[in-house]
Amino acid sequence: MPKVVFLPHAKEVEIEDGGSLIRAAMDAGVHINASCGGEGVCGKCRIIVEKGAVTDGVSERLSDDETAQGYRLACLSQITEDVTIRVPVESDIDASVLNLPATPRKTARIRQYNLNDLKEKGLFVPPIEKRYLELPPPTITDNLSDVTRLVSFLKITHDEHRLEVDLSVIRKLPEVMRTDNFKVTATLARPVHEGSKTRIINVQPGDTTDKDYAIAMDIGTTTIYGQMIDLNNGDVLSEYGDFNGQISYGEDVISRIVLAEKEGGLDRLGDVVIATINKIITRIIKKAGVNPDDISTITLAGNTTMTQLMLKIDPRFIRRAPYVPASTLYPPLRAADLGMTLGDHVAALVFPQVSSYVGGDIVAGVMGSGMYLADELTLYMDIGTNAEIVIGNRDWLACAACSAGPAFEGGGIKHGMRATKGAVEDFSIDPLTLEPMLITIGDVRPKGICGSGLITMVAVMLETGIIDNRGKFNHDLDTPRIRQIDGIWEYVLAWQDETQIDRDVVLTEPDLDNLIRAKGAMYSGCMTLLENVGLTVTDIGRIILAGGFGSYVDLEKAMTIGLLPEIDADKVTFIGNGSLLGAKMSSLTNRIRKDIVEVTKKMTNFELSETSSYMDQYVAALFLPHTDIDQFPKLKARLEARRRHIE
Amino acid sequence: MPKVVFLPHAKEVEIEDGGSLIRAAMDAGVHINASCGGEGVCGKCRIIVEKGAVTDGVSERLSDDETAQGYRLACLSQITEDVTIRVPVESDIDASVLNLPATPRKTARIRQYNLNDLKEKGLFVPPIEKRYLELPPPTITDNLSDVTRLVSFLKITHDEHRLEVDLSVIRKLPEVMRTDNFKVTATLARPVHEGSKTRIINVQPGDTTDKDYAIAMDIGTTTIYGQMIDLNNGDVLSEYGDFNGQISYGEDVISRIVLAEKEGGLDRLGDVVIATINKIITRIIKKAGVNPDDISTITLAGNTTMTQLMLKIDPRFIRRAPYVPASTLYPPLRAADLGMTLGDHVAALVFPQVSSYVGGDIVAGVMGSGMYLADELTLYMDIGTNAEIVIGNRDWLACAACSAGPAFEGGGIKHGMRATKGAVEDFSIDPLTLEPMLITIGDVRPKGICGSGLITMVAVMLETGIIDNRGKFNHDLDTPRIRQIDGIWEYVLAWQDETQIDRDVVLTEPDLDNLIRAKGAMYSGCMTLLENVGLTVTDIGRIILAGGFGSYVDLEKAMTIGLLPEIDADKVTFIGNGSLLGAKMSSLTNRIRKDIVEVTKKMTNFELSETSSYMDQYVAALFLPHTDIDQFPKLKARLEARRRHIE
Repeated sequence: MPKVVFLPHAKEVEIEDGGSLIRAAMDAGVHINASCGGEGVCGKCRIIVEKGAVTDGVSERLSDDETAQGYRLACLSQITEDVTIRVPVESDIDASVLNLPATPRKTARIRQYNLNDLKEKGLFVPPIEKRYLELPPPTITDNLSDVTRLVSFLKITHDEHRLEVDLSVIRKLPEVMRTDNFKVTATLARPVHEGSKTRIINVQPGDTTDKDYAIAMDIGTTTIYGQMIDLNNGDVLSEYGDFNGQISYGEDVISRIVLAEKEGGLDRLGDVVIATINKIITRIIKKAGVNPDDISTITLAGNTTMTQLMLKIDPRFIRRAPYVPASTLYPPLRAADLGMTLGDHVAALVFPQVSSYVGGDIVAGVMGSGMYLADELTLYMDIGTNAEIVIGNRDWLACAACSAGPAFEGGGIKHGMRATKGAVEDFSIDPLTLEPMLITIGDVRPKGICGSGLITMVAVMLETGIIDNRGKFNHDLDTPRIRQIDGIWEYVLAWQDETQIDRDVVLTEPDLDNLIRAKGAMYSGCMTLLENVGLTVTDIGRIILAGGFGSYVDLEKAMTIGLLPEIDADKVTFIGNGSLLGAKMSSLTNRIRKDIVEVTKKMTNFELSETSSYMDQYVAALFLPHTDIDQFPKLKARLEARRRHIE
Repeated sequence: MPKVVFLPHAKEVEIEDGGSLIRAAMDAGVHINASCGGEGVCGKCRIIVEKGAVTDGVSERLSDDETAQGYRLACLSQITEDVTIRVPVESDIDASVLNLPATPRKTARIRQYNLNDLKEKGLFVPPIEKRYLELPPPTITDNLSDVTRLVSFLKITHDEHRLEVDLSVIRKLPEVMRTDNFKVTATLARPVHEGSKTRIINVQPGDTTDKDYAIAMDIGTTTIYGQMIDLNNGDVLSEYGDFNGQISYGEDVISRIVLAEKEGGLDRLGDVVIATINKIITRIIKKAGVNPDDISTITLAGNTTMTQLMLKIDPRFIRRAPYVPASTLYPPLRAADLGMTLGDHVAALVFPQVSSYVGGDIVAGVMGSGMYLADELTLYMDIGTNAEIVIGNRDWLACAACSAGPAFEGGGIKHGMRATKGAVEDFSIDPLTLEPMLITIGDVRPKGICGSGLITMVAVMLETGIIDNRGKFNHDLDTPRIRQIDGIWEYVLAWQDETQIDRDVVLTEPDLDNLIRAKGAMYSGCMTLLENVGLTVTDIGRIILAGGFGSYVDLEKAMTIGLLPEIDADKVTFIGNGSLLGAKMSSLTNRIRKDIVEVTKKMTNFELSETSSYMDQYVAALFLPHTDIDQFPKLKARLEARRRHIE
């Protein structure tokens, strides 16, 4: 990876080949003015290439002279070799500003579940296995039924006992057996419960043991993701995500429930989500190039409402106190019975729920991340509109859902948006000029702010004193970017002519309020759970962050604003889509399927609204980072150092 | 019951109030000439009422004088009080004839399975049970899911563990629970296999424990019978039988299989039999006046071909050597999945098979009759076109199918017919005049001969010397009824003007040959099984006769022709439709469902065509009653006594 050295800061950073120079600066903690998001519009991100060369970076905004002197626009420059870059310091900026204690930029790496570990521990035992059999053909003195022949042979040659044969297999067995002279491959589905029977769910002529596939699926409120998994080695052969077709009926679970209560609504929502699922199934089958008959199981994880809608179970009592879901456990089902375009033999396993607002997606994350086997006290967070928290270890698990509100997904924020092209996802500010450096998704002119960008922005503003711990702008600062419009204070991230929208992109004090309430809900949820089990934040040995949002958030920034407890970044694991991970992992090791019921029962649900200490915790968390700064000792030290420096 | 005394024989018999005099004579072993079957056409059955009075019996065939003297036609007279009847003896009949040793007329009574026995032994435990529960309503501090609430309460209050809840129940539970303030009735389906889970298959608001029903069904090649059973007391609330809709596609299983092999044939036959089943279900629901939602299970027993056709499993290999059925065991199925018009929650249990020609109907009979628990050596016979035999006791069971041919169902007999209106079902002959007394089903003019009538006829003719032990008529007898037409000898049962058809009804020597082959196939089947297990006919402690045919056959007559081994009539049990009995009993006691798999495995199937001794046994059985008359000592004694008497 090429190396970039920034002068005069003497900061060094490695970046992937072809990465943008502005991204390298952000990673190095070097501020370069840039408010157009990386599209070269504002022309402010001028730098000088002192050693080596960058690719591109030339612009009409630079004169020929400047270009000849080595000036480039950072946002248009790609790093393809080692370079030394000088950031021009404007005369009115005190160089000492550059030495202010900055937030260390560090994001824990996404942890891949270690399949080899499973294999070594003998836990790589998929719930579906294929067995190739060369059966003796029947004779008049040995004319057992076809099923008995199959079952007896499996008993003798593979020590398989207590087998049950599905009707669909009985129906096809006579022909399949005689297609390749009684050479067949039987697909065995292991029982989830000890003592239950192994089912023979499919038979195929000849030897197909090398073709053994499963589908894992995350049924999200907004998006649905599916993966085709090779059960012989755990490889993901294809994956595809799409918007849940239900979003046209409402963005959140509550609006879906409201529709489901109307005449025909439940059927419609059920059909729509199954249609999306079928679309994804078709795609991943095609992408992976597998024969559908070789797919034997589909595992689905979703929150409680999504699960009930998918199964066409009336969700009305989920949204009404006392918030009772229909069920937390589901029996093994047939995918075809649920309307899925999969073979008659395909078993559908639906992840169990804990409560109305801690659903199968969270159970899947707890199982798939291995948290339920952890020795150390672990905090699992899935951050989103409905944020869920699980605290515990192998011995106990406590969980709660926080109604964080939609701020993390851009909701309730004036220029909030989903994390799509044009969203400001990274941010830095010059503490003297108060000029910003923006990076947008797709490196285009900014359209708005996504959740992870918002967190970073607020953290930076807090550390640089642009805002105070109540989330109010420092109105005394001398910059046109901080202004009051119609009585509301705001900071202009990008001026109208630098944006994709025909107005300024701003961050307002009400935006800050909303973010503080969202992060306060989450943090106080954690604190309430800890308090209820007699522990404190210092007892936490590991944090697992799940969710699409969790994968993009800057960890240290999230700690700075008090969204996450302050903990060594090495102890934080990002698992991405925990729901999908759990669905996948449980397709690969039957151990998870067996453990799941006990784990679900073990997960003690707290209704925060009914937990007496929650409101106190919440009020205390409505500050940046918190009323009690001592809970964030590193941040406290940085803020104090900064104050000393300025004084 | 009124009493009838016949003079000069001084024979006395009781008959049900309103029964016909000719039937009383038949029961008493008194011969009265009558060849018109009881419709008063031939006018031959004249008797004199000496004491008491009969109802009706007056006819234009009697002169006013005769009527005044007390003459009546026996076939038109009903017995409604005690009477003494004189049978006029024609001058040319030696009275001694009346004292010839006659076949004792005795038919073992149909045994009803004793439900009280089951109850006393604690075995009256239906696989379906209902439990009424008054659940505590949820609160915010007790907001378990509806399913968890139900399952937990069942655990605490009814000690029910290892419960699994069907999706259909989860779907309806939220509403059902809240209909009657959390008072619900749960329907529990017990597992067939130890170690498996009890399933909650239905929930209903309020207390419905007194409404708990099951359907038992016999899927026959020709007819299908269904019963609605009250699981609270074992009562049969309604029953209905109908022709299997498949009969329009062929009379026997082979013709059905041939059709099933054609394009679309299997689907058609499957749909047709399900249509008949649904028709019967609708009828018995209506007749019993039950709420379909209170029906929880349907148990179906049928032969191997009927079972495979019902389940749409290709039966082609059943009719081809080496005669391999697709399966002998079926997993628990959902009735709705099979196309039955029953609730989603209704479980369908399909009786297992032993082989291609010993099917679920026979297994059901073995289970339902309790034979599989018997100490004594028991012979179970289901007599029909495809006759099945089981020999054994609680320790072992051997079985075989005999291709008896259709003679017992009237097939291959010149005037053979099914046991419907107009079929001669009982028969007596005057050994001197050789005039017959016929009784037909429905007391109408004869149309033909049914299986049980044929057996009686042949037995009577054998004992009276009309035919010899090879089944040939005694051509020397002086009567117009024995004659040769186109080289074939025959006996005229009824003259053209006495019949419903416009020709004589006759019994021919080829008819006798066919009957002998049919009974020979059955008897030699029994002997082959006995020989293979090292036993003889004298070891048999009990005979169980099943099948519609078995219920009508005159037991002693069947022994006389050598269809059944000669055994004390008290040791013979008629169970009627054994298949339906088994289906019913297994609905009432889960013990049977649990035992069934082991019993089926225990039933050793013999392919008679491949058993070396079978052909020898068969040839030896092609006599009346058998080559070895010593196997029928009582008949031998009677025949010898008769010979002495005549000499």
